[in-house]
Amino acid sequence: MGYTDLDWKAINSIRMLAVDGTFAANSGHPGAPMGMAPVAHVLFQKIMKFNPKNPKWVNRDRFVLSNGHACMLQYSLLHLYGYSLSLDDLKQFRKVDSITPGHPEAHDTPGIEVTTGPLGQGIGNAVGLAMAQAHTAATFNKDGYPVVDNYTYCFLGDGCLMEGISSEVSSLAGHLQLGNLIAIYDDNHISIDGNTNCAFTEDVPKRYEAYGWHVVTVGDGDNDLDSIEAALKECQAVKDKPSMIKLRTTIGFGSLKAGSHDVHGSPLKAEDIKQFKEKFGLNPNEPFAVPQEVYDYYGEQAAAGAAAEEEWSQMFSKYAEAYPAEAADLKRRLTGELPKGWEKNLPTYTPSDSAVASRKLSEIVLTKIEGSLPELVGGSADLTGSNLTRWKDSTDFQPPSTGLGDYAGRYIRYGVREHGMGAIMNGLSAYGTILPYAGTFLNFVSYAAGAVRLSALSQVRNIWVATHDSIGLGEDGPTHQPIETLAHFRALPNCMVWRPADGNETSASYYVALTSKHTPSIIALSRQNLPQLEGSTLKNAIKGGYTLHEEEGADVTLVSTGSEVSICVDAVKTLASQGLKARVVSMPCMEVFDSQPKEYKLTVFPDGIPIMSVEPMSTMGWEKYSHEQFGLNRFGASGPYKDVYKKFEFTPEGIAKRAAATVEFWKGNTIRSPVNRAFQQII
Amino acid sequence: MGYTDLDWKAINSIRMLAVDGTFAANSGHPGAPMGMAPVAHVLFQKIMKFNPKNPKWVNRDRFVLSNGHACMLQYSLLHLYGYSLSLDDLKQFRKVDSITPGHPEAHDTPGIEVTTGPLGQGIGNAVGLAMAQAHTAATFNKDGYPVVDNYTYCFLGDGCLMEGISSEVSSLAGHLQLGNLIAIYDDNHISIDGNTNCAFTEDVPKRYEAYGWHVVTVGDGDNDLDSIEAALKECQAVKDKPSMIKLRTTIGFGSLKAGSHDVHGSPLKAEDIKQFKEKFGLNPNEPFAVPQEVYDYYGEQAAAGAAAEEEWSQMFSKYAEAYPAEAADLKRRLTGELPKGWEKNLPTYTPSDSAVASRKLSEIVLTKIEGSLPELVGGSADLTGSNLTRWKDSTDFQPPSTGLGDYAGRYIRYGVREHGMGAIMNGLSAYGTILPYAGTFLNFVSYAAGAVRLSALSQVRNIWVATHDSIGLGEDGPTHQPIETLAHFRALPNCMVWRPADGNETSASYYVALTSKHTPSIIALSRQNLPQLEGSTLKNAIKGGYTLHEEEGADVTLVSTGSEVSICVDAVKTLASQGLKARVVSMPCMEVFDSQPKEYKLTVFPDGIPIMSVEPMSTMGWEKYSHEQFGLNRFGASGPYKDVYKKFEFTPEGIAKRAAATVEFWKGNTIRSPVNRAFQQII
Repeated sequence: MGYTDLDWKAINSIRMLAVDGTFAANSGHPGAPMGMAPVAHVLFQKIMKFNPKNPKWVNRDRFVLSNGHACMLQYSLLHLYGYSLSLDDLKQFRKVDSITPGHPEAHDTPGIEVTTGPLGQGIGNAVGLAMAQAHTAATFNKDGYPVVDNYTYCFLGDGCLMEGISSEVSSLAGHLQLGNLIAIYDDNHISIDGNTNCAFTEDVPKRYEAYGWHVVTVGDGDNDLDSIEAALKECQAVKDKPSMIKLRTTIGFGSLKAGSHDVHGSPLKAEDIKQFKEKFGLNPNEPFAVPQEVYDYYGEQAAAGAAAEEEWSQMFSKYAEAYPAEAADLKRRLTGELPKGWEKNLPTYTPSDSAVASRKLSEIVLTKIEGSLPELVGGSADLTGSNLTRWKDSTDFQPPSTGLGDYAGRYIRYGVREHGMGAIMNGLSAYGTILPYAGTFLNFVSYAAGAVRLSALSQVRNIWVATHDSIGLGEDGPTHQPIETLAHFRALPNCMVWRPADGNETSASYYVALTSKHTPSIIALSRQNLPQLEGSTLKNAIKGGYTLHEEEGADVTLVSTGSEVSICVDAVKTLASQGLKARVVSMPCMEVFDSQPKEYKLTVFPDGIPIMSVEPMSTMGWEKYSHEQFGLNRFGASGPYKDVYKKFEFTPEGIAKRAAATVEFWKGNTIRSPVNRAFQQII
Repeated sequence: MGYTDLDWKAINSIRMLAVDGTFAANSGHPGAPMGMAPVAHVLFQKIMKFNPKNPKWVNRDRFVLSNGHACMLQYSLLHLYGYSLSLDDLKQFRKVDSITPGHPEAHDTPGIEVTTGPLGQGIGNAVGLAMAQAHTAATFNKDGYPVVDNYTYCFLGDGCLMEGISSEVSSLAGHLQLGNLIAIYDDNHISIDGNTNCAFTEDVPKRYEAYGWHVVTVGDGDNDLDSIEAALKECQAVKDKPSMIKLRTTIGFGSLKAGSHDVHGSPLKAEDIKQFKEKFGLNPNEPFAVPQEVYDYYGEQAAAGAAAEEEWSQMFSKYAEAYPAEAADLKRRLTGELPKGWEKNLPTYTPSDSAVASRKLSEIVLTKIEGSLPELVGGSADLTGSNLTRWKDSTDFQPPSTGLGDYAGRYIRYGVREHGMGAIMNGLSAYGTILPYAGTFLNFVSYAAGAVRLSALSQVRNIWVATHDSIGLGEDGPTHQPIETLAHFRALPNCMVWRPADGNETSASYYVALTSKHTPSIIALSRQNLPQLEGSTLKNAIKGGYTLHEEEGADVTLVSTGSEVSICVDAVKTLASQGLKARVVSMPCMEVFDSQPKEYKLTVFPDGIPIMSVEPMSTMGWEKYSHEQFGLNRFGASGPYKDVYKKFEFTPEGIAKRAAATVEFWKGNTIRSPVNRAFQQII
């Protein structure tokens, strides 16, 4: 309260930077930053707790711009508050290799918490950040030591609210009673197609109340700073519900085209900029001209934030004396390093161990390692009993009032919300104290494709426990049997796709996934039992691909993954009875194999021997490692899995038949290993 | 009203078939069919209009089982009413090559309208079917001639309601005031993880009211047939809102484990089946024993349906006399054939025509053909001005009361709801009178992956106008630039992915997409301008891949798609200046090229010449057609598109450099065309 001209000068400076930034880029979205500058100002200057000199302070309030196209707003704020983002960086908006790309990217830009732009993702990340705060507080806070008590604030627009993912995460946030989450809905009535009345006429406050949220409406977001501040404080005080402030704003406020979709996605014209600056007392002749008093004013809040962190650090020092184990654990978690020796808990197997489904092997891994990895927080999209993602005696992450668990619980009931689960995992990872994994059927990771893509782009460590990974799921049939899914995610940069063949490979999958600090993983796991293979070891499997079965003077190399590796091993015998010698390569993870030295790869795929791949789904991608491919470039079939395998000839005989054809076809030809390449790929 | 013992006998017969079917399959979901048998009985026996002898009657009521795992319910109903689905078919539930797969598949089973199972899709299909009815009625109905006036009924469960896609389509359905849509929510409190109170505690009726739906609650769905019927009739009478009936049921009603999640996804045990049958007076010693009186009772309703169709046919005959053009148009549409000569409207180009973005070329196609293809109904997920999907003077599909259009309008404002849009298109296609297309950025087709997959599986003709198809979109940056997307959808069976290089190829894309009655298409289109190529013709391009530029004694073949084909043509000159001869192949659609005869394919990719692919995204899949691949196996960059192309060397020089390396690398080797294969793929 007590806002003065200086506040408005600051607000108009934010607007001006958005206007000048998009004009200089000749591209971008000035409208939302101009409309949301008042609430951004109030939030950052009066409400939020942050230290621009240490954007990684664990107890900072988190800010998420779910309408990421409005990022000139966020970049401007970061600059004005003194984060490592200069005026030159603003001038480089939307230029190649700048730290101010067209949408905010967390891995590149200090102060950006999560990568947003694809609509609806940010509010999902915000729910994840709020869940992480609740969990971290419940785990680490002690009487008199509020180690983390931060809030998460999220701006979002009509587009985010139309996307289904926001519905998923908002419903869950209401269920979880996340009082630490405050969303500000930029109700500007405009989307790209024009007025929102053409497609979006629902009653948003009523919908959010139905989810269990506290909803406040502010009628004049353009001018009424007092009401904005009061609404934010009201929401802070609601401890058992997430809050939404529905804020009526004018898109492009100050422009001649204010209130229209003309200001949504294109820079203002020069004459419009001129009148805008003149109207608000800004220098119309110099772009990016921030008054010094605005820098000074924001500098005060930045200094207050630094002081707040200092005070927190003193508190944390005392905490570390009183609770040395907890303090050390928290500090370690924030580095992303795992506790020393955790990997000794990974189970290993010998061929005499019994056949087990790899989803079950995954459960065994989780059960064995969870004690040594307290940051591991799991869940499932309502398939717990099928994904086997919950170790025995786990506690659910739930509001205590439900009687079903507590916030220190490490198992999340996501509900049937795969896309939301993916975005929430990105938020959990971004918080810094949690290593999330979550389960669904492999086929339904596709529902979450938008979130998985952002896991990869923003370089976070999430793990998808993707069970029921092929036609081997049997009776559920083609609607549930993945065909294109592995190709899809293998084609995604910075994403590891694992498909382990047995127990040792399952342990290897987890080992690499858990120790890859900047890469998400999808571990594809079988419903059906798999034998423990001769030749499979943890050491071999962490290379991504290795020779499982070597044969002197081999006629053919079979390369396979997961549940078909053992069928290939059986096919070796069938081939032997036909006088053909076959090697078998197991390739649990292409991406990891690709990163091995060429010499090693040539030992796995030597020149001179034709290679045939075996995987009962799309053959796409296997041409990179093989001369011939045995796969399934059609949809599967519903039936007991052994019948389905038989139908498509994924049997020792079916494999042997095609392997023999491969040998015959390549006879007399020079055979080059596909490892040899003419030039380096851009990766 | 006036329900008797016979009704209960019928209801228990439905339950029995679900129990026996899942028991025989040793797999499947008996719980929901047992719980929903009463409402299914009331709906089919008292409310719905259908003729089992002609499952394709255009004015039938549509029934969608969004909770598709409950399909033994639907199969049982189809059998009992006399559709071509025998008792033996029920006994073959979940067996290989049966017409009763684990989840309902529309293309295989008479009476199944849409393919469901992946949660949330069915309600999206239902919204599409209801929109199609509204549009068809507005287009064809005349005073006294209600050509179509059917309703769409949809069963859905908690899982569907948790999925974001249902939120998207329900919000739109409310906006569109679809009074012809009635959803029945099976409120059984149980999902796979147990009681829904662990993750789903929102107020569903309030949420649906917020969407603008009429909501009725029936408290006792297990016993109160009168209230069920009354609720259905109440909803039928609400003409300007979609309706939801929240029906409290007991999952697995009649089982010893009724009301628990034990009956959700596993067959009942033998002793439980025995007590169930004894309790309801069914023969406990014989499975699948339907009392004849139940068949007779259902037969009456089937006969009434046949009579209703007969009456409709007489009305339609008169309509055909009064409105011969309309009647002929409707009849034609239902065959899926396009009007004769429509293709003459496809624009063609010569190299002297100016450079145009392929998204704009797509707009030109739509503008030229819409007049001759009245079934074409388009839309966009709030990117109309970017996708260029709306021809000038188009009318929006809107409730007349909005003043923004009418139901005869052929342009749908989907809002930012890609996944919902995909499911709605599947419903629009399934209705039979509409050929839907819709736009979004290529990158965001991934949000709709779940729906696209079902388009392919259920063999419907939808077209995605997927603009901004590469790093060529420029400034929006990596969050919006597809890398994995083409590989993903190329790996999906029965899905055509087009990436045309110029105007003739754009026309070819539409030609093949529109004439492929059983295959969906994704047409990837550029934001940036593309020159009209020498050598590109409609006739060439409809082969999927062809030699654009031939060169005697070529050293290398360059194969490319879309916006990079012209850069390859320029690279030919760069290579010539280095003394190297290059051919250029344009490959707008791999799937269509794959279907050409081998002889043709060998003329495009002859033996003896090394092939290099050029596409600025994941190289995955290109190994199938090339020896070396120039692509982008990393995320893109934000900047003006020419700078981004330069950064990654997608320039004539960058291509020539790698082509020269390819020639050098393969020198002195036997080079086999990748068209040669050792054995046939399973497609």
